[in-house]
Amino acid sequence: MMPNKAAVLYAVHDLRIEQRPIPDPAPGEVLVEMRSVGVCGSDVHYYNEGRIGSFVLDSPTIMGHESSGVVVGLGEGVDTLQVGDRIALEPGVPCGTCMQCRSGRYNLCPYVKFFASPPVDGAFVQYLTINQHFAYPVPDTISDDAAALMEPFSVGIWACRKAGVSAGASVLIAGAGPIGVMALQAARVFGATDVVVTDTNTYRLERAISLGADRVIDVSGEDDLSTQLTADIFIECSGAPHALTQGMKCLSPAGVAVAVGMASADDLLVPMAVMQSKELTLTGTFRYANTYPIAISLAAAGRVDLDACVTGHYSLEETEAAFMASKSDPTVLKSVVRPNEV
Amino acid sequence: MMPNKAAVLYAVHDLRIEQRPIPDPAPGEVLVEMRSVGVCGSDVHYYNEGRIGSFVLDSPTIMGHESSGVVVGLGEGVDTLQVGDRIALEPGVPCGTCMQCRSGRYNLCPYVKFFASPPVDGAFVQYLTINQHFAYPVPDTISDDAAALMEPFSVGIWACRKAGVSAGASVLIAGAGPIGVMALQAARVFGATDVVVTDTNTYRLERAISLGADRVIDVSGEDDLSTQLTADIFIECSGAPHALTQGMKCLSPAGVAVAVGMASADDLLVPMAVMQSKELTLTGTFRYANTYPIAISLAAAGRVDLDACVTGHYSLEETEAAFMASKSDPTVLKSVVRPNEV
Amino acid sequence: MMPNKAAVLYAVHDLRIEQRPIPDPAPGEVLVEMRSVGVCGSDVHYYNEGRIGSFVLDSPTIMGHESSGVVVGLGEGVDTLQVGDRIALEPGVPCGTCMQCRSGRYNLCPYVKFFASPPVDGAFVQYLTINQHFAYPVPDTISDDAAALMEPFSVGIWACRKAGVSAGASVLIAGAGPIGVMALQAARVFGATDVVVTDTNTYRLERAISLGADRVIDVSGEDDLSTQLTADIFIECSGAPHALTQGMKCLSPAGVAVAVGMASADDLLVPMAVMQSKELTLTGTFRYANTYPIAISLAAAGRVDLDACVTGHYSLEETEAAFMASKSDPTVLKSVVRPNEV
Amino acid sequence: MMPNKAAVLYAVHDLRIEQRPIPDPAPGEVLVEMRSVGVCGSDVHYYNEGRIGSFVLDSPTIMGHESSGVVVGLGEGVDTLQVGDRIALEPGVPCGTCMQCRSGRYNLCPYVKFFASPPVDGAFVQYLTINQHFAYPVPDTISDDAAALMEPFSVGIWACRKAGVSAGASVLIAGAGPIGVMALQAARVFGATDVVVTDTNTYRLERAISLGADRVIDVSGEDDLSTQLTADIFIECSGAPHALTQGMKCLSPAGVAVAVGMASADDLLVPMAVMQSKELTLTGTFRYANTYPIAISLAAAGRVDLDACVTGHYSLEETEAAFMASKSDPTVLKSVVRPNEV
Repeated sequence: MMPNKAAVLYAVHDLRIEQRPIPDPAPGEVLVEMRSVGVCGSDVHYYNEGRIGSFVLDSPTIMGHESSGVVVGLGEGVDTLQVGDRIALEPGVPCGTCMQCRSGRYNLCPYVKFFASPPVDGAFVQYLTINQHFAYPVPDTISDDAAALMEPFSVGIWACRKAGVSAGASVLIAGAGPIGVMALQAARVFGATDVVVTDTNTYRLERAISLGADRVIDVSGEDDLSTQLTADIFIECSGAPHALTQGMKCLSPAGVAVAVGMASADDLLVPMAVMQSKELTLTGTFRYANTYPIAISLAAAGRVDLDACVTGHYSLEETEAAFMASKSDPTVLKSVVRPNEV
Repeated sequence: MMPNKAAVLYAVHDLRIEQRPIPDPAPGEVLVEMRSVGVCGSDVHYYNEGRIGSFVLDSPTIMGHESSGVVVGLGEGVDTLQVGDRIALEPGVPCGTCMQCRSGRYNLCPYVKFFASPPVDGAFVQYLTINQHFAYPVPDTISDDAAALMEPFSVGIWACRKAGVSAGASVLIAGAGPIGVMALQAARVFGATDVVVTDTNTYRLERAISLGADRVIDVSGEDDLSTQLTADIFIECSGAPHALTQGMKCLSPAGVAVAVGMASADDLLVPMAVMQSKELTLTGTFRYANTYPIAISLAAAGRVDLDACVTGHYSLEETEAAFMASKSDPTVLKSVVRPNEV
Repeated sequence: MMPNKAAVLYAVHDLRIEQRPIPDPAPGEVLVEMRSVGVCGSDVHYYNEGRIGSFVLDSPTIMGHESSGVVVGLGEGVDTLQVGDRIALEPGVPCGTCMQCRSGRYNLCPYVKFFASPPVDGAFVQYLTINQHFAYPVPDTISDDAAALMEPFSVGIWACRKAGVSAGASVLIAGAGPIGVMALQAARVFGATDVVVTDTNTYRLERAISLGADRVIDVSGEDDLSTQLTADIFIECSGAPHALTQGMKCLSPAGVAVAVGMASADDLLVPMAVMQSKELTLTGTFRYANTYPIAISLAAAGRVDLDACVTGHYSLEETEAAFMASKSDPTVLKSVVRPNEV
Repeated sequence: MMPNKAAVLYAVHDLRIEQRPIPDPAPGEVLVEMRSVGVCGSDVHYYNEGRIGSFVLDSPTIMGHESSGVVVGLGEGVDTLQVGDRIALEPGVPCGTCMQCRSGRYNLCPYVKFFASPPVDGAFVQYLTINQHFAYPVPDTISDDAAALMEPFSVGIWACRKAGVSAGASVLIAGAGPIGVMALQAARVFGATDVVVTDTNTYRLERAISLGADRVIDVSGEDDLSTQLTADIFIECSGAPHALTQGMKCLSPAGVAVAVGMASADDLLVPMAVMQSKELTLTGTFRYANTYPIAISLAAAGRVDLDACVTGHYSLEETEAAFMASKSDPTVLKSVVRPNEV
């Protein structure tokens, strides 16, 4: 039997490398040899806290949901893929029949099975199976890493779609972390012409410039951004206290704010008097829907540089080190685990 | 010279009846003999506080912006109205050339001249002039009072349009005051089939039932509405503390909240964790745009009963009594001043 | 064994009553005893022509897709229904995973199995099985006939949604047949205040008045409707030659036309010069998506009178007579077969 | 007195160079010294036919509506511009108060005064006046020619907005003439990743490639494009017979077609059977609204190359030669007149 190593999270700060059986693909599924798996803040959050909101790690679970691989086996009835296809994996498979699914909002499906949301296993593993319709072939011009990063890029695309970013829009993005730079790149391909990114980490701000930001602002100790800029759209990717209110105050009349970053508090203050007088809109986002084909088209057309976001590679055995990389080093943006490399 | 009495607010609790000259209509304007002028909470707020947010009463100003009348004079070039036409007056005349106006959002025009927003005079007066394009003829089936109430009905229509109320929607409305009942009637004509109205005033809740609410809830001492109901759309018309958060927690996935009521605080708490996981949207509203033709069509077609909202009539000299009517009597909903009746 | 009679179409004008085995519900399916099945123009079209466009009757097929029944058996895992539930059947079950399904446009799913689209069997039968998610419980206030008519009412709702009918809209509907009167009733519940219906059958025009039309026009020999009326929205339900062009010429600037009726020709003339100068929009419609819950809510709330559209009842054995009813009698609107009545 | 030469069209093939008085700017207007004026197909059409649809040349009129210049005089109350500002001129000034204007559709204003729509004079003149709000300052990075071409670029932007072009869309454009290449460049900045352009002129197809088309197709003698490509969006810019039907047949389900090119016939055939089964939408376009700020932002950000579309320069005296340039030379795309150069 071929080995199938996995990095399994048992409890807070208890991540173990284990052998798992290689699964058989069910009808309609493919078996995938994993190539690149990005480390997301949510993986690290489970590792540190054992939960995210109402999702609780109460049984050992494989983390990881930003992933790419190669098809190495086909279940019965698979007709959209062949062995050898390089694929990006969309990590959430919805039910397809509930009212949310039928309305095109499958990201809100209450029955979705989403990688690395306990108890559903994720992608830090050598082999896994997935429904063929959530495994998207990518052309050779897209690297394994870039294929894995279709997931966070989808978050950026979704934020731009929810916000209605269109040609000529001015966009403020709070947070130049892994999601912020995805929102930045997405905003540019949606046609935004004035994209301002804020953060308190100067390394990240410099990288934002190199990835296409028209302007960056170090908001360390900044109280009132609205004297410095006006934006049609605000995408909150920092999760930082006050960032939401601070950003919304920069919006033009009829402006739109989209919250992507998860704040630690359940309730947040919004500038309601300004929201009223300017008719602002605030929308939450939860994952994404129908973004993978778009993300792949944009990457294949060379409109974005996803590889430039990767700052380190790790073997599966080094997954824990990958989780901790960003803690000590402010230059780390996106760490990638290669489950089938040594 | 004909008399032209006006109720002029000089300062907090200082409302005086004065004689003003009857104005000459400028080119494109008509002279209007006023028939009905509704008392709005904002009139009373200026009377009690001398300001609303950034709008400050710093010179004597005539209040009143819910009004109807009869055309009695025509300025040069008027071509849409004739002497004798009964009209509803849209109280805000925007500039027509700024970016907000050109985008169809004339309610956000920074140059708008809006009745009873100091220093612009309003409608508690016997005669005034208005741009012909903001004076809408009404058929005889619409009473003078109903014609005046096109203004608050416009607020209800605007809330429903911003919220996207459509056929089969379930709608929660917080507050059964003059705006809440307008939102209620608007929601029904937009096709909502399950409209729930909350308040703490039992008279108002009973009236909401008679005006078409499918259900009412007395929220005195109520903490968690979300165990009792789910709604696609939430229209906040109460301005009450906690009402926004309480209502938003009742929303279905992809639900929309619209804030109409003005809270006393500039910043309000929103349930951001819920907004994220359900992808809720919150929108502020500021007045309305392009609603008068719709409001008049609906009233003319008998789809709403605006007269049923009127609970008392006053002469111009009694304007101050009209302002105070709702303070002592919980059954008062909408008081109407008749400037040209004794 | 219980009998399970079906009306099976073998070929043009060859409809046979046969015994079929009662099917076993597969996992997730329910067994339904049929109550009411409406005769649709498409059933009659297959009976007369043996095909509709690219859909060809090349094997014996049971017609009928407007239906209601009672749940009499449950497949494994059914959790949304119980034996005894009265239901409306949505006749098209899509795949749930293709790009159209995931985008909320499941009516465009290329893999949909739709009742009475050869070779998929339909509803003129005593017992059939259906996926539980496409069987919608109805309250007792909704009759069996009305439950069956959720299907054509869905067509009317879909037309209004595609057209963006909203409160205060003026709507022109061409054709007062079974679909036209559904569009009429839908337009009213979406808030339209000025609904004009055209036809050449005076019985149908009279019925349109009784079902809520504000005005009807007999277009026998009528060439240019645009001198008589202007509409924001035009819903073509007649399939008649010239009706599309004639109706579009009545539209206001930025008006929307929706084609529901199927014309006999593949290509039709549109008034492109007018479409350009007024920026008109024309949209095709194909079935409907996400309409059943709305349709049921509206019927349950008493906003529409679907029973008033039924003009005759037939037993299963009389299905052929039901098909031919409208041919000879201009007062016939909707014939209903009751498969389990004698 | 300074000279003010103009190229005035008196009748078919009767274009005269005349001296006109330099106008005084009215209140709110600026006096502009013209720099670049593009020749549009509509100018040439008036020159050759004396009319376009219902617009008839019945008095001598100055043609030209794609223009840029420098502010050299200020009317009373001008507060958004200064002498010396380089500007792009939006050629249509709407009324600002009609229902179309108030709804944000000022391009449909029945009272608009549009350059070179008889009897309103246009831009082939040395000096003219314009409302300050329709004179947009441009930065030095935008050339005079590019500033003039904001007008046809606006047509391209408008087509993309009406079509809903967004990131990852595939777009088919029929016609690689001056409007086609503007639609092409606009589609790319709106995020389209697969843009196919068709024409029968090989010079134009080559230029389309250099301006960013992903693929071009020579449709000389081509009957059925749909076997070669599928597109989400189709923008008809050719006005050629059959192009509309041919392009619409290439659309994916739920696809959108936008007609920009003016065909010679008032009525055109559309593939209605396909429109029904795929729920396609077809929209006409008329000029544009709210595009100039976007067009200028995009050009200033270097997202488009408008100068590359200019193929020849002419003095005012050579206006007639500019009109005829494209007739004999298939490589001509956009000719530009410089009214104040010799």
